[in-house]
Amino acid sequence: MDWLTSVKWDRDGLVPVIAQEAGSGDVLMFAWMNREALAQTAARGQAVYWSRSRQRLWHKGEESGHLQQVHEIRLDCDNDVVLLKVTQLGHSPGIACHTGRHSCFFQRFEGGQWLAVEPVLKDPEAIYR
Amino acid sequence: MDWLTSVKWDRDGLVPVIAQEAGSGDVLMFAWMNREALAQTAARGQAVYWSRSRQRLWHKGEESGHLQQVHEIRLDCDNDVVLLKVTQLGHSPGIACHTGRHSCFFQRFEGGQWLAVEPVLKDPEAIYR
Repeated sequence: MDWLTSVKWDRDGLVPVIAQEAGSGDVLMFAWMNREALAQTAARGQAVYWSRSRQRLWHKGEESGHLQQVHEIRLDCDNDVVLLKVTQLGHSPGIACHTGRHSCFFQRFEGGQWLAVEPVLKDPEAIYR
Repeated sequence: MDWLTSVKWDRDGLVPVIAQEAGSGDVLMFAWMNREALAQTAARGQAVYWSRSRQRLWHKGEESGHLQQVHEIRLDCDNDVVLLKVTQLGHSPGIACHTGRHSCFFQRFEGGQWLAVEPVLKDPEAIYR
């Protein structure tokens, strides 16, 4: 389909994806999609990524229940980065990170080092049973 | 330095970077940094990226005057993605995109196609003289 073809896939056939929480504006996570993942995301209205470590489609929340409802899909000026506006489901406040935190970006550069500055909302052992 | 070493640089020695406007929460752009770019960003308090097309350091705004003042640098759970909280300088409202728009993510997926849904705030020809 045209809209999938106009995306500039990289040498691995992937595109970087930023997931932003629609309500808060918080950047929740960063991942990758291939053509099939983007097509499924648009069709389902839920985020489906490409897991580079597992080399397979990754329906976000398939294990944890922390699905991402997709409200909007955006593409940047160079057609090579995707931005999703999502609601992070399954827990309140939403948990996007596998560490049990709201956002994956919980380490802040401070005093010459990276400090974890966001709380763990749920024990990862309780998330991935 | 330790904090630079703990970043997981990819096979090209780069890390993906998301720039988010501190005030609005808007995701402005996506770019890449190498080790030197991240070191300079932290030292100057202004965003310095690595331009993959030009293969050189790119002090954002060096031509356009649209500098990014960096308030916070964050790192994700896998240590392989950086998030900057910035103020987009040089124009009000801020222009991060080379097309003269506020954000690079101005194309929205709608009705099976990508539609440009954000206004051009300044003619790019007037930005890059």
